[in-house]
Amino acid sequence: MAEFTNVTISTKANIYFEGKVTSRTVVFQDGTRKTLGIMLPGEYEFSTSQKEEMDIQAGVLEYKLQGQEWKTIENSGVFYVPANESFSLKVHSVVDYCCSYFSEE
Amino acid sequence: MAEFTNVTISTKANIYFEGKVTSRTVVFQDGTRKTLGIMLPGEYEFSTSQKEEMDIQAGVLEYKLQGQEWKTIENSGVFYVPANESFSLKVHSVVDYCCSYFSEE
Repeated sequence: MAEFTNVTISTKANIYFEGKVTSRTVVFQDGTRKTLGIMLPGEYEFSTSQKEEMDIQAGVLEYKLQGQEWKTIENSGVFYVPANESFSLKVHSVVDYCCSYFSEE
Repeated sequence: MAEFTNVTISTKANIYFEGKVTSRTVVFQDGTRKTLGIMLPGEYEFSTSQKEEMDIQAGVLEYKLQGQEWKTIENSGVFYVPANESFSLKVHSVVDYCCSYFSEE
C-alpha cells in the first residue's frame, strides 16, 4: 500500500457537500500539499485556484473539464485541471482520491 | 488547528458502511497508530480489538458502551472503549473524529 512519510497532517477534516466529499490536508517537507479524500455518489462542481492533479485510487466517476466531453475513470486514473477553472463530477461509487496542487499555471 | 507532524499516512482510505464512515490511518514515529475519520449521519456498531480513545472533533453523536446508557457528545468530547468490546453510535450530523489505539487492555 502506498504511503506518505514524514508528512504533517491537519487533524481537522475538509468537509464539503454536507459530508459527501471530505478530505484531509497533507503537507510535505518540501512545503507541497496534497489532499486525501473521499467522494460519495453524487454530482459535484469544484473550482481550482491552482493547477490540480486528481489521482483516483478507487471508485468510478465521470469528470468534465471546461469545453471538453465527459470522460470516465474506473478505479484508477488521473486527470489534470488548470488553475482557476471549474470542473464537474458525476460520482457513481465511493471514490478514494489524492489531489495534488501545483503552483505553476 | 491541531496537526500531526513527522507521521506516515497510508494513501488508501479505510471505508465502512458504504462510505458513510471512512478514515485514514496515521502512524507515528513511535509506532503508535491513530485514524482520522468522518462519520455521516446514521446508526453504526463497531467492535474493538484494542482499547480505543474516540476523540470527537466536530459533530453530534450519541454513543453506547456495553452495559451503559446512551451518552451524547456535541462538537467535542472523548470516550474510551475497552479492548474486544462492541459499541453503538447514533450519528446526528457529520462527525470528524480521531481514534487512538492502546495496546494495554
